[in-house]
Amino acid sequence: MNWLFHDIGAPDADFYRQALDRQAQLTKPPGSLGLLEDAAVRLAAMQRRDRPQLERIHVSVFAADHGIAEESVSAFPQAVTVEMVKNFAAGGAAVNVLARHVSADFEVIDVGLLQPVDLPNVIADRAGAGTANFKLFPAMTAEQLALALSAGKSAVDRAIASRADIFIGGEMGIANTASASALAAALLNLPTIQITGAGTGLNAVQIEHKAAIIASALLKHQAFLSSPLAILQHLGGFEIAALTAAYIGAAQQGLPVLVDGFICSVAALLAARINPACDEWFFYGHHSEEKGHKIVLEALKARPLLNLNMRLGEASGAVTAVPILQMACRLHNEMATFAQANITTG
Amino acid sequence: MNWLFHDIGAPDADFYRQALDRQAQLTKPPGSLGLLEDAAVRLAAMQRRDRPQLERIHVSVFAADHGIAEESVSAFPQAVTVEMVKNFAAGGAAVNVLARHVSADFEVIDVGLLQPVDLPNVIADRAGAGTANFKLFPAMTAEQLALALSAGKSAVDRAIASRADIFIGGEMGIANTASASALAAALLNLPTIQITGAGTGLNAVQIEHKAAIIASALLKHQAFLSSPLAILQHLGGFEIAALTAAYIGAAQQGLPVLVDGFICSVAALLAARINPACDEWFFYGHHSEEKGHKIVLEALKARPLLNLNMRLGEASGAVTAVPILQMACRLHNEMATFAQANITTG
Repeated sequence: MNWLFHDIGAPDADFYRQALDRQAQLTKPPGSLGLLEDAAVRLAAMQRRDRPQLERIHVSVFAADHGIAEESVSAFPQAVTVEMVKNFAAGGAAVNVLARHVSADFEVIDVGLLQPVDLPNVIADRAGAGTANFKLFPAMTAEQLALALSAGKSAVDRAIASRADIFIGGEMGIANTASASALAAALLNLPTIQITGAGTGLNAVQIEHKAAIIASALLKHQAFLSSPLAILQHLGGFEIAALTAAYIGAAQQGLPVLVDGFICSVAALLAARINPACDEWFFYGHHSEEKGHKIVLEALKARPLLNLNMRLGEASGAVTAVPILQMACRLHNEMATFAQANITTG
Repeated sequence: MNWLFHDIGAPDADFYRQALDRQAQLTKPPGSLGLLEDAAVRLAAMQRRDRPQLERIHVSVFAADHGIAEESVSAFPQAVTVEMVKNFAAGGAAVNVLARHVSADFEVIDVGLLQPVDLPNVIADRAGAGTANFKLFPAMTAEQLALALSAGKSAVDRAIASRADIFIGGEMGIANTASASALAAALLNLPTIQITGAGTGLNAVQIEHKAAIIASALLKHQAFLSSPLAILQHLGGFEIAALTAAYIGAAQQGLPVLVDGFICSVAALLAARINPACDEWFFYGHHSEEKGHKIVLEALKARPLLNLNMRLGEASGAVTAVPILQMACRLHNEMATFAQANITTG
């Protein structure tokens, strides 16, 4: 896992300045395109291009099962994880529809379902048959953690091989907001009730139960929660580990990342704690309705592009933000300058 | 102008219920697509379709000059209005780039530039050669108001003729945030400093000057500000009148509207004050950085789709939101149901 700590370069400062200069010449009051200007300038610096582009979008959805599901922390039964993987493979899930809308390359990776699925368009890169129940045991062994991290790295390598302009990760795994809430509570040293939310649709009493389960797990493992990787091993999910590694791997290879909602943001926080320079390569797609997201976004100093009250996961919020970034690029590249349009500036 | 008060029908309640039913069957936790669900359901009701669609987007940008510009209420000289109209005609402005991204039908209408422009792709539908300086005079005559309203109605008629699925209005007119702020202050009975903002880029001292100009205009005309149309005549711009009429006309013909930023929202507020049923046909594209927008949105009980710190006008914020509505439609239409995907729901 040493590669996780390898150097991450910064986006290019010269391209950043050139892009800022260009924005100042476009036919609009300075700053009037708001976040669209910031996004175009950052992308130009990341892509080392005068004209940033988002043509090839790579979407990897990592699916895995969670032992903690047996503690009644989700509104849906555990069987839904594999059923949704089949739905992804058949093209019927929200993220499929959204990925088609932006002509993204879409893949789903089994990084640890309870049982493997036999479907030609599901990539098997398994770290195990679901995690252990982290109320009682470490969620995964060190070897499983390494396998899950490697699955994330491999997804980024495929994105690079297909010349992707941006990497989007997503997740599916019944009970994975419980895992993500536990990770965030451990990383940020927060009371579990503050970071534990409704997930797919728990009521207030069920949320209290979920927070109590997480609190007892944190107590049980507390002596071992000494590093981001140790926290990930004890409380994580295989898909969260894969996302964490994918974000670091993308940043190391200079590939911009568009982070999805709560669970992906927890993976982004893990990535930033493991290798701090990586978050310069991150965009954030949306602000999720899931309770803990706000806290995690603040810890990352992140300002998401969208806030549409979504709370689905699957990369759905990030893919919904793709057209915003594409329009930011096109505005940067195609608008006339004041000189071209012969416009008086004051 | 009697047509402004003609009946507006409500979106179809049966299609609304059917669309809600369908959303409940799609493979996602209930409500987890947030505003995308609301948008799809409302569009289905407006379009009287099981499967809402946003294929044909009609964008009309209304341009006009403002006599109030001579009071130094804008960071840009008045000549920029016509220069930007030429930029629209040449395809170099932000809204052109955005309209191309969503394959919209785009038109620019001279509803009252100081001088007509001789460009084949600018529609001349002029109410006058700029408004009068409303600090000193009523901005327009009753006849000019009727002409400007008619220009808005004609744009909607063109949208209907081209079988548009949604109508988007935009505006260009140096000093038009001064007019819009005056209109909002009069409609909402607010102190001008509360509703007056930076427009294209005034500093704090310049904003105070702008608010003082508006305050003196409100004082001068106060005896005549007895109805929304009288307020529009005394303080408005030709483009704002055109937008107001377009919004009412679209609602009367059952054509959904996507409202842009501050100035367009003031037109939407005028429309709703003139013919209250029209706002059921409105979507709001974005929350602008312009100071008064928040207040006007609250008065309209509006929740915009985007908040990207934009403050450009030209319909740019609304067109940026088009892909969000398109994805909402596609999710509604293309996602698998739980039954189709054979998924356990609890």
